[in-house]
Amino acid sequence: MDMALIIGYLASVCSMTSFVPQAWKIIKTGDTEAISKRMYTVTVIGFALWSAFGFLRMEWPIILTNVVCFFLSGFILTMKWLPRRKREAVSAKLDPDK
Amino acid sequence: MDMALIIGYLASVCSMTSFVPQAWKIIKTGDTEAISKRMYTVTVIGFALWSAFGFLRMEWPIILTNVVCFFLSGFILTMKWLPRRKREAVSAKLDPDK
Repeated sequence: MDMALIIGYLASVCSMTSFVPQAWKIIKTGDTEAISKRMYTVTVIGFALWSAFGFLRMEWPIILTNVVCFFLSGFILTMKWLPRRKREAVSAKLDPDK
Repeated sequence: MDMALIIGYLASVCSMTSFVPQAWKIIKTGDTEAISKRMYTVTVIGFALWSAFGFLRMEWPIILTNVVCFFLSGFILTMKWLPRRKREAVSAKLDPDK
Protein backbone atom coordinates (compact mmCIF):
# COMPACT_ATOMS: atom_id res chain seq x y z
CA MET A 1 0.00 0.00 0.00
CA ASP A 2 1.58 3.31 -1.04
CA MET A 3 1.96 6.32 1.29
CA ALA A 4 -0.76 8.32 -0.50
CA LEU A 5 -3.28 5.53 0.03
CA ILE A 6 -2.44 5.32 3.75
CA ILE A 7 -2.89 9.09 4.06
CA GLY A 8 -6.11 8.82 2.08
CA TYR A 9 -7.56 6.21 4.44
CA LEU A 10 -6.50 8.27 7.49
CA ALA A 11 -8.21 11.32 5.94
CA SER A 12 -11.27 9.17 5.31
CA VAL A 13 -11.42 8.12 8.99
CA CYS A 14 -11.13 11.78 10.07
CA SER A 15 -13.83 13.00 7.70
CA MET A 16 -16.26 10.27 8.71
CA THR A 17 -15.43 10.67 12.43
CA SER A 18 -16.29 14.35 12.21
CA PHE A 19 -19.38 13.99 10.00
CA VAL A 20 -21.12 10.78 11.13
CA PRO A 21 -21.89 11.66 14.80
CA GLN A 22 -23.49 14.98 13.78
CA ALA A 23 -25.51 13.26 11.06
CA TRP A 24 -26.57 10.41 13.36
CA LYS A 25 -27.67 12.92 16.04
CA ILE A 26 -29.88 14.72 13.50
CA ILE A 27 -31.33 11.40 12.30
CA LYS A 28 -32.03 10.16 15.87
CA THR A 29 -33.56 13.40 17.12
CA GLY A 30 -35.29 14.24 13.85
CA ASP A 31 -34.26 17.85 14.59
CA THR A 32 -33.57 19.29 11.15
CA GLU A 33 -34.49 22.85 12.19
CA ALA A 34 -30.93 24.19 11.95
CA ILE A 35 -30.45 22.80 8.46
CA SER A 36 -31.02 24.93 5.36
CA LYS A 37 -32.70 22.86 2.63
CA ARG A 38 -30.82 24.72 -0.12
CA MET A 39 -27.38 24.44 1.49
CA TYR A 40 -27.87 20.79 2.45
CA THR A 41 -28.92 19.96 -1.12
CA VAL A 42 -25.57 21.39 -2.27
CA THR A 43 -23.82 19.27 0.37
CA VAL A 44 -25.54 16.08 -0.83
CA ILE A 45 -24.75 16.89 -4.48
CA GLY A 46 -21.14 17.49 -3.43
CA PHE A 47 -20.86 14.04 -1.83
CA ALA A 48 -22.44 12.47 -4.95
CA LEU A 49 -19.96 14.22 -7.26
CA TRP A 50 -16.98 13.28 -5.07
CA SER A 51 -18.19 9.67 -5.11
CA ALA A 52 -18.35 9.78 -8.93
CA PHE A 53 -14.89 11.35 -9.01
CA GLY A 54 -13.59 8.60 -6.72
CA PHE A 55 -15.04 5.85 -8.93
CA LEU A 56 -13.69 7.44 -12.12
CA ARG A 57 -10.24 7.63 -10.53
CA MET A 58 -10.70 4.31 -8.64
CA GLU A 59 -9.54 5.99 -5.40
CA TRP A 60 -11.05 3.91 -2.58
CA PRO A 61 -10.48 6.47 0.22
CA ILE A 62 -12.55 9.00 -1.73
CA ILE A 63 -15.21 6.45 -2.68
CA LEU A 64 -15.59 5.13 0.87
CA THR A 65 -15.86 8.53 2.57
CA ASN A 66 -18.20 10.14 0.10
CA VAL A 67 -20.56 7.21 -0.43
CA VAL A 68 -21.07 6.90 3.36
CA CYS A 69 -21.54 10.66 3.74
CA PHE A 70 -23.84 10.74 0.68
CA PHE A 71 -26.25 8.18 2.16
CA LEU A 72 -26.25 9.84 5.61
CA SER A 73 -26.74 13.37 4.28
CA GLY A 74 -29.24 12.10 1.68
CA PHE A 75 -31.25 10.51 4.50
CA ILE A 76 -31.15 13.77 6.47
CA LEU A 77 -32.25 15.80 3.45
CA THR A 78 -35.15 13.38 2.89
CA MET A 79 -36.15 13.83 6.54
CA LYS A 80 -35.94 17.60 6.05
CA TRP A 81 -38.50 17.36 3.24
CA LEU A 82 -40.85 15.10 5.27
CA PRO A 83 -43.75 16.69 7.24
CA ARG A 84 -43.02 16.91 11.01
CA ARG A 85 -45.30 13.98 11.96
CA LYS A 86 -43.60 11.60 9.49
CA ARG A 87 -40.17 12.85 10.51
CA GLU A 88 -40.86 12.14 14.16
CA ALA A 89 -42.19 8.67 13.25
CA VAL A 90 -38.92 7.91 11.44
CA SER A 91 -36.72 9.06 14.32
CA ALA A 92 -38.95 7.24 16.85
CA LYS A 93 -38.35 4.02 14.92
CA LEU A 94 -34.61 4.64 14.89
CA ASP A 95 -34.43 5.57 18.56
CA PRO A 96 -37.16 3.49 20.32
CA ASP A 97 -35.95 4.27 23.86
CA LYS A 98 -36.45 8.00 23.27
CA MET B 1 -9.83 18.20 -19.47
CA ASP B 2 -11.15 14.71 -18.78
CA MET B 3 -14.64 13.99 -17.41
CA ALA B 4 -13.31 13.00 -13.96
CA LEU B 5 -11.55 16.35 -13.59
CA ILE B 6 -14.72 18.26 -14.56
CA ILE B 7 -16.71 16.26 -12.00
CA GLY B 8 -13.93 16.86 -9.47
CA TYR B 9 -14.08 20.63 -9.94
CA LEU B 10 -17.91 20.60 -9.71
CA ALA B 11 -17.62 18.60 -6.48
CA SER B 12 -15.07 21.11 -5.25
CA VAL B 13 -17.48 24.01 -5.91
CA CYS B 14 -20.26 22.19 -4.02
CA SER B 15 -18.09 21.36 -1.03
CA MET B 16 -16.78 24.90 -0.72
CA THR B 17 -20.23 26.42 -1.31
CA SER B 18 -21.62 24.37 1.55
CA PHE B 19 -18.65 24.84 3.93
CA VAL B 20 -17.41 28.41 3.40
CA PRO B 21 -20.55 30.41 4.36
CA GLN B 22 -20.88 28.48 7.66
CA ALA B 23 -17.18 28.96 8.42
CA TRP B 24 -17.26 32.66 7.49
CA LYS B 25 -20.33 33.19 9.73
CA ILE B 26 -18.46 31.65 12.69
CA ILE B 27 -15.38 33.77 11.97
CA LYS B 28 -17.41 37.01 11.64
CA THR B 29 -19.54 36.45 14.74
CA GLY B 30 -16.78 34.85 16.78
CA ASP B 31 -19.49 32.47 18.01
CA THR B 32 -17.67 29.17 18.46
CA GLU B 33 -20.00 27.99 21.25
CA ALA B 34 -21.62 25.23 19.18
CA ILE B 35 -18.25 23.81 18.12
CA SER B 36 -16.65 20.89 19.96
CA LYS B 37 -12.87 21.42 20.22
CA ARG B 38 -12.18 17.69 19.92
CA MET B 39 -14.44 17.14 16.89
CA TYR B 40 -13.24 20.26 15.10
CA THR B 41 -9.61 19.21 15.62
CA VAL B 42 -10.47 15.95 13.81
CA THR B 43 -12.11 18.00 11.04
CA VAL B 44 -9.00 20.18 10.60
CA ILE B 45 -6.71 17.12 10.59
CA GLY B 46 -9.02 15.56 7.97
CA PHE B 47 -8.67 18.57 5.67
CA ALA B 48 -4.87 18.52 6.15
CA LEU B 49 -4.67 14.81 5.28
CA TRP B 50 -6.92 15.20 2.22
CA SER B 51 -4.70 18.10 1.07
CA ALA B 52 -1.62 15.86 1.44
CA PHE B 53 -3.44 13.08 -0.43
CA GLY B 54 -4.34 15.53 -3.19
CA PHE B 55 -0.74 16.72 -3.55
CA LEU B 56 0.63 13.15 -3.57
CA ARG B 57 -1.84 12.25 -6.31
CA MET B 58 -1.58 15.71 -7.98
CA GLU B 59 -5.39 15.97 -8.06
CA TRP B 60 -6.16 19.69 -8.17
CA PRO B 61 -9.88 19.44 -7.25
CA ILE B 62 -8.89 17.70 -3.99
CA ILE B 63 -6.01 20.10 -3.31
CA LEU B 64 -8.10 23.21 -3.95
CA THR B 65 -11.07 22.18 -1.80
CA ASN B 66 -9.14 20.87 1.14
CA VAL B 67 -6.50 23.59 1.34
CA VAL B 68 -9.25 26.27 1.41
CA CYS B 69 -11.27 24.34 3.99
CA PHE B 70 -8.11 23.61 6.01
CA PHE B 71 -7.26 27.31 6.38
CA LEU B 72 -10.86 28.29 7.22
CA SER B 73 -11.38 25.50 9.76
CA GLY B 74 -7.88 26.02 11.15
CA PHE B 75 -8.69 29.69 11.71
CA ILE B 76 -11.92 28.73 13.47
CA LEU B 77 -10.15 26.19 15.67
CA THR B 78 -7.56 28.85 16.60
CA MET B 79 -10.41 31.21 17.53
CA LYS B 80 -11.95 28.42 19.62
CA TRP B 81 -8.75 28.18 21.66
CA LEU B 82 -8.51 31.97 22.13
CA PRO B 83 -9.93 33.54 25.34
CA ARG B 84 -13.33 35.29 24.73
CA ARG B 85 -11.91 38.86 24.79
CA LYS B 86 -9.29 38.06 22.12
CA ARG B 87 -11.84 36.16 20.05
CA GLU B 88 -14.21 39.12 20.02
CA ALA B 89 -11.32 41.45 19.10
CA VAL B 90 -10.53 39.23 16.09
CA SER B 91 -14.12 39.11 14.88
CA ALA B 92 -14.53 42.88 15.50
CA LYS B 93 -11.56 43.49 13.20
CA LEU B 94 -13.06 41.22 10.54
CA ASP B 95 -16.52 42.74 10.79
CA PRO B 96 -15.99 46.43 11.72
CA ASP B 97 -19.62 47.45 11.02
CA LYS B 98 -20.86 44.96 13.64
